[in-house]
Amino acid sequence: MKVAEPTIERLVQYHRLLEMLREEGHRVVSSHQMGELLGFKASQVRKDLSYFGEIGKRGVGYHVSKLSDHIMKILSSPRVWNIALAGVGNLGAALLSNDAFRNSKMRFEALFDVDEAKIGRKISGVQCWDVKEMPEVMKERNIEVLLLAVPAKAAQSCVDLAISAGTLRGVLAFTQGSLVLPSDIIIFRVDILAELEKLLFFLKQKQEHSV
Amino acid sequence: MKVAEPTIERLVQYHRLLEMLREEGHRVVSSHQMGELLGFKASQVRKDLSYFGEIGKRGVGYHVSKLSDHIMKILSSPRVWNIALAGVGNLGAALLSNDAFRNSKMRFEALFDVDEAKIGRKISGVQCWDVKEMPEVMKERNIEVLLLAVPAKAAQSCVDLAISAGTLRGVLAFTQGSLVLPSDIIIFRVDILAELEKLLFFLKQKQEHSV
Repeated sequence: MKVAEPTIERLVQYHRLLEMLREEGHRVVSSHQMGELLGFKASQVRKDLSYFGEIGKRGVGYHVSKLSDHIMKILSSPRVWNIALAGVGNLGAALLSNDAFRNSKMRFEALFDVDEAKIGRKISGVQCWDVKEMPEVMKERNIEVLLLAVPAKAAQSCVDLAISAGTLRGVLAFTQGSLVLPSDIIIFRVDILAELEKLLFFLKQKQEHSV
Repeated sequence: MKVAEPTIERLVQYHRLLEMLREEGHRVVSSHQMGELLGFKASQVRKDLSYFGEIGKRGVGYHVSKLSDHIMKILSSPRVWNIALAGVGNLGAALLSNDAFRNSKMRFEALFDVDEAKIGRKISGVQCWDVKEMPEVMKERNIEVLLLAVPAKAAQSCVDLAISAGTLRGVLAFTQGSLVLPSDIIIFRVDILAELEKLLFFLKQKQEHSV
């Protein structure tokens, strides 16, 4: 079953919401409530969930923990992904210290940096190597996913080193600027500045239209 | 002229690419080249740009600096936005230390944290206050945009304090979990974990379909 990206985006959000509701002791939830809390139409919620075989009871809704487990199964990997982080600056440190990134789906196997003070040390329990050692270390540890948090100017050469390991399959890039990658490697981006610029644009647009 | 969010997203990317090309000394660029570098169809690039009155010359393309300035004018605000950052942890520090966030559109006017070691100090040149002081400080400094980088559990109460200032118009949230906001405040999200989970899902899907 092939699933489109926007659907996955929503599934991830449903799952997060359901886990929160479960923690708060809720047993059932309606498509209307889920839609309300996430900003989707209730009909969208029903459509998404029925696509994965979950039909809520009219007037009752969905069983919170059952639905959450079901979505988890769809989202989860049959195995753990080995991840490397290149660039252990403030952003990299934020990722490393966030418990949410230490889950059953992923394992930080290596850090890479150019800073002599970091190379050879363990940071948040993970070994840091010189960026130059990426090809060997990534190959040896079968690292398939790279979190790229290096400065924009170093991004392409860093990715090139990772590619040469031969094990790389996916990149999550935090850097601005374009990157050239083989077409069989999947790249996702988190562009914080672009999000902020979009927000400011919409604020401006709203202001102009409300005058 | 009302512009939809995906269009703005692309405009931001066109502008970034054009600035890069300008820096590298390129004078003209075709819609094909732009599409290739950004992963869009050339027809999409042409459609977007013609919507804003820019028509490339057949066989020549667009004039890099002219087009870049034109897009900048569309994106830019007639004024500077005063911004506050709540939560000066690793992620907050990454935002503060990134030069890209010190531009003509935005100015960091205040930081907020609960850490006694940070309160009362200047961090990257910006004054840090106790989160409790948000209503007064935000009002006094006319802060309309909040970057929310506090732990998930503190997010709602932090946003509530910001709302009570009366000046808040937009939030860029880095926290997971749902937030309740008045409908006239625009919220954008950067959910790094969700992006990583989506990437892993697509890697899994690709692996299953290639076997």
